[in-house]
Amino acid sequence: MAPSIKVFGSPTSAEVARVLTCLFEKNVEFQLIRVDNFKGERRLPEYLKLQPFGQALTFEDGTQTLVDSREICRHLAEKYAAQGTKDLLGSGTLERASIEQWLRTEAQSFDPPSSALVFNLAFAPLLDMKRDSETVERSKKELKKVLDIYERRLDETEYLAGDKVTLADLSHLPNAERLVKNEECSSLFTSRKNVFRWWGEISTRSSWQRVVGMQKEPPHII
Amino acid sequence: MAPSIKVFGSPTSAEVARVLTCLFEKNVEFQLIRVDNFKGERRLPEYLKLQPFGQALTFEDGTQTLVDSREICRHLAEKYAAQGTKDLLGSGTLERASIEQWLRTEAQSFDPPSSALVFNLAFAPLLDMKRDSETVERSKKELKKVLDIYERRLDETEYLAGDKVTLADLSHLPNAERLVKNEECSSLFTSRKNVFRWWGEISTRSSWQRVVGMQKEPPHII
Repeated sequence: MAPSIKVFGSPTSAEVARVLTCLFEKNVEFQLIRVDNFKGERRLPEYLKLQPFGQALTFEDGTQTLVDSREICRHLAEKYAAQGTKDLLGSGTLERASIEQWLRTEAQSFDPPSSALVFNLAFAPLLDMKRDSETVERSKKELKKVLDIYERRLDETEYLAGDKVTLADLSHLPNAERLVKNEECSSLFTSRKNVFRWWGEISTRSSWQRVVGMQKEPPHII
Repeated sequence: MAPSIKVFGSPTSAEVARVLTCLFEKNVEFQLIRVDNFKGERRLPEYLKLQPFGQALTFEDGTQTLVDSREICRHLAEKYAAQGTKDLLGSGTLERASIEQWLRTEAQSFDPPSSALVFNLAFAPLLDMKRDSETVERSKKELKKVLDIYERRLDETEYLAGDKVTLADLSHLPNAERLVKNEECSSLFTSRKNVFRWWGEISTRSSWQRVVGMQKEPPHII
């Protein structure tokens, strides 16, 4: 019997990668359906075009359909509370409030500049598009401010919402991975001692390493 | 607009790999739809279980549905005769007859023992299944006889059906690749001078190299 959870999308999309990480953390059975367009030996880069607008993901759990990656992760953390990594949304109201605050910070303050940087620095060259230099500079400034706040927070706690890893941390993985590996942006993370320690802790989790492996495509894709 | 040709299956399946090679040779636009089942970080090996029975492939071209990989390749070679690699089914009745004869030899004499060997030597260990030693020995003997016939034929012609590459050659690629890379079977090919030359010619085609790249999966799959 096919699993009740179906994910439609490519692991190279940040939205899909966020959901896959959560599914792996929760040890949930699911089906991943990938659609790639080819013209001869060339894979057409539709999946890259969709990525920055977050339209590359659909999630079905039985008859329920969700498209927002953070909503999907909340759903998984609540529905599968008892299995896999526990307390991804905390174990009580106070903890949950702190986690939700940092999830909001990720979605509203970290995600916009980091997505803009990922698109302009990592994907635009693959699509033969020029970078938007003004956006890149503005995004770097915004991201520095956010990471300065993280640096102070992570001086007090091991993870953003406290001493345990939660969805608030894991949500950063897809964009942070691409920025840490980009020579222009790497130092934003490596130069901040606490951020870099935190990055080391979350990025080496086996769930995320599995997703990174799935993102690696053979050469000559485009 | 989505391409009219849709392929459902995994490139690791010999049937799917055969069709992908032909699509790449003919430079045809298509959509590949892959479905993988996961349980936590483990990918479930359903696609391996299906493979030896050839049920892992569905092909749609508009309203037409085909499931036999060689039928699909014939369809592509005829419909897209004017584009990509020409004459994959020959340029006249006589050539076509020779190609069909070698396609039949591949399907009826090469495929059964080579599929049995691929399953027992390459896939069974991944599925924690014991090899069927009797089948392995019988298949090796059968394959030797077939390759002896190929060795004599390829002393006279560059490719099986004549001096141009055709579907009759390309159909061998998926199973031959796995056997050449298997230490128990490699010598069946390398010890036959003409077979090995022929293998070198067909296996280095960019279409097939592209499929081999798609078959490579990141580690820790199973």
